[in-house]
Amino acid sequence: MLFFTQCFGAVLDLIHLRFQHYKAKRVFSAAGQLVCVVNPTHSLKYAPTRCAAAQASTEQGILPPCHHHEAVHDPQLVPCTCPLFSCPWEGHLEVVVSHLRQTHRINILQGAEIVFLATDMHLPAPTDWIIIHSCLGHQFLLVLRKQEKYEGHPQFFATMMLIGTPTQANNFTYRLELNRNQRRLKWEATPRSILECVDSVISDGDCLVLNTSLAQLFSDNGSLAIGIAITTSKVHSSEAEM
Amino acid sequence: MLFFTQCFGAVLDLIHLRFQHYKAKRVFSAAGQLVCVVNPTHSLKYAPTRCAAAQASTEQGILPPCHHHEAVHDPQLVPCTCPLFSCPWEGHLEVVVSHLRQTHRINILQGAEIVFLATDMHLPAPTDWIIIHSCLGHQFLLVLRKQEKYEGHPQFFATMMLIGTPTQANNFTYRLELNRNQRRLKWEATPRSILECVDSVISDGDCLVLNTSLAQLFSDNGSLAIGIAITTSKVHSSEAEM
Repeated sequence: MLFFTQCFGAVLDLIHLRFQHYKAKRVFSAAGQLVCVVNPTHSLKYAPTRCAAAQASTEQGILPPCHHHEAVHDPQLVPCTCPLFSCPWEGHLEVVVSHLRQTHRINILQGAEIVFLATDMHLPAPTDWIIIHSCLGHQFLLVLRKQEKYEGHPQFFATMMLIGTPTQANNFTYRLELNRNQRRLKWEATPRSILECVDSVISDGDCLVLNTSLAQLFSDNGSLAIGIAITTSKVHSSEAEM
Repeated sequence: MLFFTQCFGAVLDLIHLRFQHYKAKRVFSAAGQLVCVVNPTHSLKYAPTRCAAAQASTEQGILPPCHHHEAVHDPQLVPCTCPLFSCPWEGHLEVVVSHLRQTHRINILQGAEIVFLATDMHLPAPTDWIIIHSCLGHQFLLVLRKQEKYEGHPQFFATMMLIGTPTQANNFTYRLELNRNQRRLKWEATPRSILECVDSVISDGDCLVLNTSLAQLFSDNGSLAIGIAITTSKVHSSEAEM
């Protein structure tokens, strides 16, 4: 009888150990993902149509068509691509990151997979949440915007832009994932180049779009966690399977 | 020299064979998925707010609150849940499927994973595309609706309802997937019970929502392919990892 009791105890211990191991694994994998708390920035100048013609030209391979001001004399110069401000700065693509960090104080984060935690989702539109994500030898700008495309109905738009040319952008795939309350929403796409306008990407709705009620379902205590992953592009193998 | 030429030729042949094998594999896996062509139905009676109070009551565990007419005398009787028509029919849950098939001529499809191919996406709102999906011993109603939530801006809403009780619905997870033009959008959730109203699910936006431009990007020649998969529920393991 004692033997059976001891055996039963040993089995219980094993189950308990296995559960502890599984729990620890989950905690570690959670800890392995870098969580970045991103505070909102109220747009100082909001000009949704400033780059209306940008997308079409860029798709035809013509580079920086997205001008905030009348003319860029040197074709190698890029205007400031920060979506928050109408900024008079212009410079070479290589120095866009340092301009965004120094002048607009946008944080930079390293890592293939990170969690972007946008706070104060209740703030009125227009509001932006922005970080630079450094990964695979490149920098990407992640923009989450709350905007009233239809008056009185704010929506959330999330997209990722490569701080590089459209040709370089074609080499990557980004994934945005929301996961809460037994719902999961995943958006995967090729990042646009920062030479195209984030405003036109958002006005076209070619990004992750959330209405307010869905954003609330995915939010926790007024904050929205978006899992971000960037990979080098492969042929979307299941595309043909559809 | 001839030896090297032959070696190079052999390597090229191997690469070609591997490519052919990969291509064939893709074609076969594509052929394995059942594709269902679903024609649109223009709603005869469109009453988006007919079940405004339904969701809250059902969440509290109170069953069929979604009545099309004043009173259902027998609490075991369910009104017709077809979202297309204001139908006076009512009956037990077990005979809802046969009513939907016989009276509303909704097609039924078998299989764990199917492709729902909605045609004529250009038709004006309100329009519905509906099938019954039979899987894992249960029947699910898939509804894709084109609706103008904001006047002049039609959107597409897709959701899956279990033809069963909310308790039964909690045992399943459904996935809707769009995949085209280097973009992928996945929505995963617990299906709602058909005793809740599809109208309220759609008006709350607690489903897959697509604006017109995104629907066009995912469409091919006016048809939208939605990959559907249903599984028995597991704890969303990565939820805690976010």
